[in-house]
Amino acid sequence: MKTYKMVLSYDGTNFAGWQIQPNAITIQQLIEEKLLILTKEAISVVGAGRTDAGVHALGQTAHFSTHFPIDSDGLLKSLNGMLPQTIRVITLEEAPLDFHARYSAKNKVYHYHLSTEKFQSPFRRLYSLHVGQKIDLEGLKQGAKYLLGTHDFTSFSNQPLSGACGKNPIRTIDRLEVIEEHWGVRLEFEGKSFLYKMVRNCVGTLLEVAGGKRDPEQIKTILEAKDRKLGGKAAPPHGLFLVRIDY
Amino acid sequence: MKTYKMVLSYDGTNFAGWQIQPNAITIQQLIEEKLLILTKEAISVVGAGRTDAGVHALGQTAHFSTHFPIDSDGLLKSLNGMLPQTIRVITLEEAPLDFHARYSAKNKVYHYHLSTEKFQSPFRRLYSLHVGQKIDLEGLKQGAKYLLGTHDFTSFSNQPLSGACGKNPIRTIDRLEVIEEHWGVRLEFEGKSFLYKMVRNCVGTLLEVAGGKRDPEQIKTILEAKDRKLGGKAAPPHGLFLVRIDY
Repeated sequence: MKTYKMVLSYDGTNFAGWQIQPNAITIQQLIEEKLLILTKEAISVVGAGRTDAGVHALGQTAHFSTHFPIDSDGLLKSLNGMLPQTIRVITLEEAPLDFHARYSAKNKVYHYHLSTEKFQSPFRRLYSLHVGQKIDLEGLKQGAKYLLGTHDFTSFSNQPLSGACGKNPIRTIDRLEVIEEHWGVRLEFEGKSFLYKMVRNCVGTLLEVAGGKRDPEQIKTILEAKDRKLGGKAAPPHGLFLVRIDY
Repeated sequence: MKTYKMVLSYDGTNFAGWQIQPNAITIQQLIEEKLLILTKEAISVVGAGRTDAGVHALGQTAHFSTHFPIDSDGLLKSLNGMLPQTIRVITLEEAPLDFHARYSAKNKVYHYHLSTEKFQSPFRRLYSLHVGQKIDLEGLKQGAKYLLGTHDFTSFSNQPLSGACGKNPIRTIDRLEVIEEHWGVRLEFEGKSFLYKMVRNCVGTLLEVAGGKRDPEQIKTILEAKDRKLGGKAAPPHGLFLVRIDY
């Protein structure tokens, strides 16, 4: 038995997300299907971040274990030859037997893109949220500061239906930077782990601050209330990129 | 009668190019359709560069003339509201009555993107040509130098069927730069005007040099032969961007 680690990039536009689900095409499913064809073994692939429908990845990381004798370089080429161009396996290599894409992760980086152009560039339409309003950058930065650090993020998490994931709502955001681009703003999130929809809920609420609908200080009140109903709605998936997982 | 100038950006992926043609969706056609709805006038729109199917534009420029009383800002918003997100009119303003998008142009800038990653990023698949080979950058730069300046570009032009365009094959490339990016190479072309498919034919031939199939000096021989059969085949359209037209 050997364990393999793969780093993947995908354009999430036309996928129902990472995780296998009935009646929809997901990235995990396509990779498992190709691995079955290539190895004749039913191999389960575990991703570090279960990106939702429409969310993109520059550096998703996954692992799988198999008894099948694998030539990493050959399998990497074969997988990319069979997968659609919207999914690329960037690297594939043997990892320690106990490597787990999710549990071994030390740090995750997500970026959210807001385009503030008057008319959104056609080349950003699938990869950034078009904000059709003037943005209060200072307010956005102040609001972001309240999210930094260790908090109970209940107000910014959509509890999934499955009980298995209904876990401790305490999380730490180690870095939340607001970076200006010529086309808008990039929000960079970094932390060991995030709750379900936490990044998109944080962005959605910060957008209310950036649009002048809330004061930055309200982020603190919302956090303390531990009530999802008080947080803003999730920002749409197409602005979100899973950038990197560090181990 | 007044004349208006518009600057447009479009993702050419799913269009049959700029110019109206039967049984295909083109950018010119969509804009004329929306102008007809908005003004109740049949308005002809003339583009500076007749980009082919699949070619993208960051700054295509077009003009039209009409007796209809136009509020430029209002029409700009209405057009963008009606056009698909793959086409954006960036600016729309009144121009001198004799302004002509094509004949008044002083300078055109085209970029061609080559991605040299081992496995092409999903986010570049529609916007750059994936070169599945090691590239000879020095050869590419040397070959490009032979194309610079004023030449008879017959060997690099596909004559269109229409006689109206079968014109003088002498053109001047004022700038042709090979710029390295972290994902590959960008070729920047600049000149007052280009022959039909000239940029893509130049890139296709330069790619043969970059791939070691031709010596850079052969570019000179091909130019001098004035024979399209000697030039390389056109590079595919999805790597090409019409970047800017200067007046």
